[in-house]
Amino acid sequence: MNSEFRIQNSEFNTDWLTAQAIASPDKLALVATRPHRSRRPVRSNLAYRQLNALVDGVCGRLASLHLARGSIVAAHLPSSAEYVVLVHALARMGLVLAPLNTRLTSAELGAQLNHVRPALLIYDEAEPTSIPSHWEKMEAVGQTLTLQKLMALPPAPFAPAPMDLERLQSIVFTSGSSGAPKGVQITFGNLFWNAIASAARLGVMPDDRWLSVLPLFHVGGLTVIFRSCIFGTAMALHPKFDVDAVLRSLDEDAITLVSLVPTMLGRLMELRAQVPSSLRLILLGGAAASEELLAEAARRGWPVAPTYGLTEATSQVATMPPDEAARKPGSVGKPLFGAQVRILDALGEPSPNGEIGEIAVRGPTVMRGYFDNAEATAKAICQNELRTGDMGYVDAEGDLFVLQRRSDLIVTGGENVYPAEVERALRSHPKVKDALVVGLPDAEWGQRVAALVVADGITAEELLAHVRATLAGYKLPRVVRFAPALPLLANGKLDRAGARAMLLDLNEKSGFANLSVLL
Amino acid sequence: MNSEFRIQNSEFNTDWLTAQAIASPDKLALVATRPHRSRRPVRSNLAYRQLNALVDGVCGRLASLHLARGSIVAAHLPSSAEYVVLVHALARMGLVLAPLNTRLTSAELGAQLNHVRPALLIYDEAEPTSIPSHWEKMEAVGQTLTLQKLMALPPAPFAPAPMDLERLQSIVFTSGSSGAPKGVQITFGNLFWNAIASAARLGVMPDDRWLSVLPLFHVGGLTVIFRSCIFGTAMALHPKFDVDAVLRSLDEDAITLVSLVPTMLGRLMELRAQVPSSLRLILLGGAAASEELLAEAARRGWPVAPTYGLTEATSQVATMPPDEAARKPGSVGKPLFGAQVRILDALGEPSPNGEIGEIAVRGPTVMRGYFDNAEATAKAICQNELRTGDMGYVDAEGDLFVLQRRSDLIVTGGENVYPAEVERALRSHPKVKDALVVGLPDAEWGQRVAALVVADGITAEELLAHVRATLAGYKLPRVVRFAPALPLLANGKLDRAGARAMLLDLNEKSGFANLSVLL
Repeated sequence: MNSEFRIQNSEFNTDWLTAQAIASPDKLALVATRPHRSRRPVRSNLAYRQLNALVDGVCGRLASLHLARGSIVAAHLPSSAEYVVLVHALARMGLVLAPLNTRLTSAELGAQLNHVRPALLIYDEAEPTSIPSHWEKMEAVGQTLTLQKLMALPPAPFAPAPMDLERLQSIVFTSGSSGAPKGVQITFGNLFWNAIASAARLGVMPDDRWLSVLPLFHVGGLTVIFRSCIFGTAMALHPKFDVDAVLRSLDEDAITLVSLVPTMLGRLMELRAQVPSSLRLILLGGAAASEELLAEAARRGWPVAPTYGLTEATSQVATMPPDEAARKPGSVGKPLFGAQVRILDALGEPSPNGEIGEIAVRGPTVMRGYFDNAEATAKAICQNELRTGDMGYVDAEGDLFVLQRRSDLIVTGGENVYPAEVERALRSHPKVKDALVVGLPDAEWGQRVAALVVADGITAEELLAHVRATLAGYKLPRVVRFAPALPLLANGKLDRAGARAMLLDLNEKSGFANLSVLL
Repeated sequence: MNSEFRIQNSEFNTDWLTAQAIASPDKLALVATRPHRSRRPVRSNLAYRQLNALVDGVCGRLASLHLARGSIVAAHLPSSAEYVVLVHALARMGLVLAPLNTRLTSAELGAQLNHVRPALLIYDEAEPTSIPSHWEKMEAVGQTLTLQKLMALPPAPFAPAPMDLERLQSIVFTSGSSGAPKGVQITFGNLFWNAIASAARLGVMPDDRWLSVLPLFHVGGLTVIFRSCIFGTAMALHPKFDVDAVLRSLDEDAITLVSLVPTMLGRLMELRAQVPSSLRLILLGGAAASEELLAEAARRGWPVAPTYGLTEATSQVATMPPDEAARKPGSVGKPLFGAQVRILDALGEPSPNGEIGEIAVRGPTVMRGYFDNAEATAKAICQNELRTGDMGYVDAEGDLFVLQRRSDLIVTGGENVYPAEVERALRSHPKVKDALVVGLPDAEWGQRVAALVVADGITAEELLAHVRATLAGYKLPRVVRFAPALPLLANGKLDRAGARAMLLDLNEKSGFANLSVLL
C-alpha cells in the first residue's frame, strides 16, 4: 500500500533472531509441548542461541533448493518447535510463508494453493491424513517436501536476506468461511509494530512467557513468535487447545501471558476458580465475549484483557487492560499505540462518538493488501485506512465497543438488528447459558431474526416474554431453536455460518419453535 | 551515515506523542517537581492528553517565528515540565534541539553556539545568572527569546512535520571537557531503538514511572522522555539530583525505575538501608561503579543494573539485569537488542574473548555522526561501526567489562596502565574510602601514575606497601595526594580532568607526598 509518510530507521543489519541470539543467547526462547502416544507430553526447551542455530540449519537446507528470494513457501504443519524454527528460517532466507490451516478440506487447501502458487510446499510425514494425495503432482505447487525430507537434504551455504520492514513475512488466509481465498499480506513492519504496540499496552517483562494455544496459521498464534523474539521473551507453544494441558502449563511453566478466545476462557473457568498469580494477563480475542463471562472473570480477579483484532491488522487493534475491563465490561478499550480508529457511517463519513458505524483502522499494523486481489484490496483499504467490515462505536472516553461483524448484521424490514444485542438480551435470562442470533431469509421482511439457544427448563415463549422487556419489537427473534451447545469453528470462534445453515435446515423441517404467530 | 541495510516501516503517520494521546489519553505522562522558594516543591502531573495539548500550544508559538524545517533551536533551560513540552514541540515542528549544559561557562557556551549557529536560542528568564549578556547580540544566534516571551507570542497555525526515523531530533554536546565542541547528532530512529532495546532488557510495564535526575542536556535524561512516550509510561522529573528529594520520590511517587550514576547511588545507600519494593530497577551508568558499591547493593537486594553507554550510541549499549549483576560484579552484561559489540586491538582487528581492546559498537542507536565535523566523525565511525575510545573486554559468556575510557589510559614507559585497576587496588585497603588515578606528564616516562585518595589514618607509604602486593611495579602510583572528597562533574561523574589539574598544581607546589624516592 502507498503511505503518505514513511519511517526508516537507522541501521539494523541483522534479523531479529540473530540480534536476540547476541543480546540474550542463554535466555529461554521457546517451550514447545508435543503429545506423545505412550508417554507424558514431550517438551522442548530452546534458548535463543539454540533456536538460532537450528534456524541456521534449516536455512542451509532451504538454500540447497535454490528458491528465488521472495518465493512463497506453503506450510501444512502442526504447531511445533519445528514449525517455529521454519518460520524464522523462511524470514532469514527472504522467503514468504503461506501457513495453511490444517483443518481445511483438500478442496479448500487446493483453492488456496492455486491462488498463491507456492514454489515449495512443506508438510509433516507424521500427519499423513492431512495430505491430499494429489498435492505431489499439483501444477500450482513448484515442489513438495515433507519437513523430514527437507531436514535430510545436504546443507548449502547461504546469505541471510537483508532486513527490511517492508518485506513480506507471510500470506495468511482469512478465516472467512465462504468465497474465494483471500491471502492477507503481512510485512515484518506489521509484525514489528504489533510487538511494540502490544508491549506498550500490556507491558513486557524479561521473564515473560506467552502461552500460545492458537494455531500458527492464524495471526493470533503467528504474532507471538515475533513478539517474543523482538523482546527476548519466551513463547510457550501447545499443539492445540487442551484445557488440561493449559491448566498444567499455567501451574508448572510460569506462564505470564496467554491468548485465548472466549470459549477457551469459559472452559478454563469451569474447571478452575483461580489462576496462579504468575499469570498476569489473559488476552481475550477472536470473538466478542459475553458480559457474563467478563463479569465472572472480573469477580474472580482473572486478569482478562479483551481485545479487538483482525488478520488484516496483524491481530490487536484495540485492547483494554484488565483493571479497566472490570470497570467497563463489553469494551475492547482504546486503539493501540500507532493505531487510529474511526467509526464511519454508511456513506463512509466519520460518525460522532456514540454512533454505531463501520470500524475503520489506520496504522502501521495494517496489512499491505490481499495477495493478488486488487479488487478485494481496494474494497478493504481506502486511502491507507482499513475498512474492517465490523460494526461498533466509540464512547465519550474513547473506548471502542464492537457490536458485530458487519457480515452478520441482520436487516429486517429496513431496520438494522445487531445480533450481539439480541444475544445479550437472551443471555440475561438466568436459565440461558448461551445464545447465537443470525438472520434467515424472509420473503416479506428481507431477513428474519433467528436464535440458537443453549438453556435448560425454559420454553421459547417464556424466553420471548423475557426479552420483550428490553428489545424493540423488530429485534425479537421470530425463530428460536434450542441446542445442547453452540457450533464452533476450528479456532474456537462461534460458527455463525454453520448456525445459520442449521437453523435454515431445521426451519425447512419446521421441527422447532417458530414464534411468528406470537408476535 | 551510510547503512548497508535500511529498515522502513509501514505507515506511521503521526508523531509518537500524538499516537500516545490517542492510545493512552488519560495515562500519566509526566510528574515534574520544581523547587519553590517558600513552600514545598511544586509538582505538575500531566496526562498524555494534557501534555499533547501543551505541546500543540508551543508549536503554535514556534510557528509564528517562521523557522525553516530542520533549523536548530538551542535551549538553555533547567529540567522542568516546560522543557519536556518544548522537546516534544520541536520534534513535532521538525526543528532540531540543541540542549545546552546550564553549568558551562559563557565562553564554553559561546563556542558551542558558534559551532551549531542556532536559528533560535531559548532560555529561562527565571534563571538570569545563566544568561551571558552578550548572547542577545551574538551573530551566531538567529534570535534569542526567553521561554516566557515565546509563550506570550500569538499562536499561528502549523502543520506537524512528517514522522521520519532518519530525521534529527537533537544535537547533544559530549561531556568531554577539553577541545572544540563536538555535537552528537541523534535521530528519532536512534531514540526509537534505544526505547525498544531498553524495554527488551529491562522490561516495561504499563504503570512504570521512570525517575530522571540526570540533566535533559545529557542522553541519560533526554532518552527517558522518548522511552516513556513510546511505551505510554510516565517520566518523573527532578530539576537536579537532590538525595532527599529522590528518597521522597521513591517513597511517595511509586517510582519503578531510576537512572543514577555511582556517586548518586552511593549517597542514597548512605542514607537508606532499603528501597521500596515498588522500585524494580536502578539503571547505573555514566561511570564504572566500584565492586564494593555493587557488592553492597547486591547484599541489600537493591535492584541495580549496571550499564555501559555513551552519547554517541544514544545511551545504553550493554546493560546487565540485577540478578546477573549480583552474580558477576564488574560486568555491564551483554549488548542490547540490535547492538553488536566487538573488541578491537591497536590495529583495529577483532580481539579474541578475554583480550583487552577498544570497544566498538554497531547498531541502530549509533549516532548519525558529529555535527559539521567530518574529521571527528570519520575518526569515530568506521564502516558503520562506532569506535568508542573506551577499553574493555568480553568474557567467555559474552559479557562486557569496561576497564576505562581510553582517554584516561595512562601510558608510562611504554606500558599501559588502566586507572581502574590501580583504583581498585587502592580501594581494597580497609581505610580507603575512594581513589582516583590519573597520568601526569613525566619527562622521563611519558606519564607518571598519580592518585587522589580519600582515606583516614593512613600514610602514603603504608598505602603503597599495601598495593605493591597486587600491582606490577610500573602500575604503582608515583604521586599520592589525600583529599576529603573526589572532584565531581555536574552530572555526578568523576572529574578526572579536574583531579589531574589539581594534582598537577599541587605537584608544582610539592606540598604532597611524592613517592618516587620510595620506588
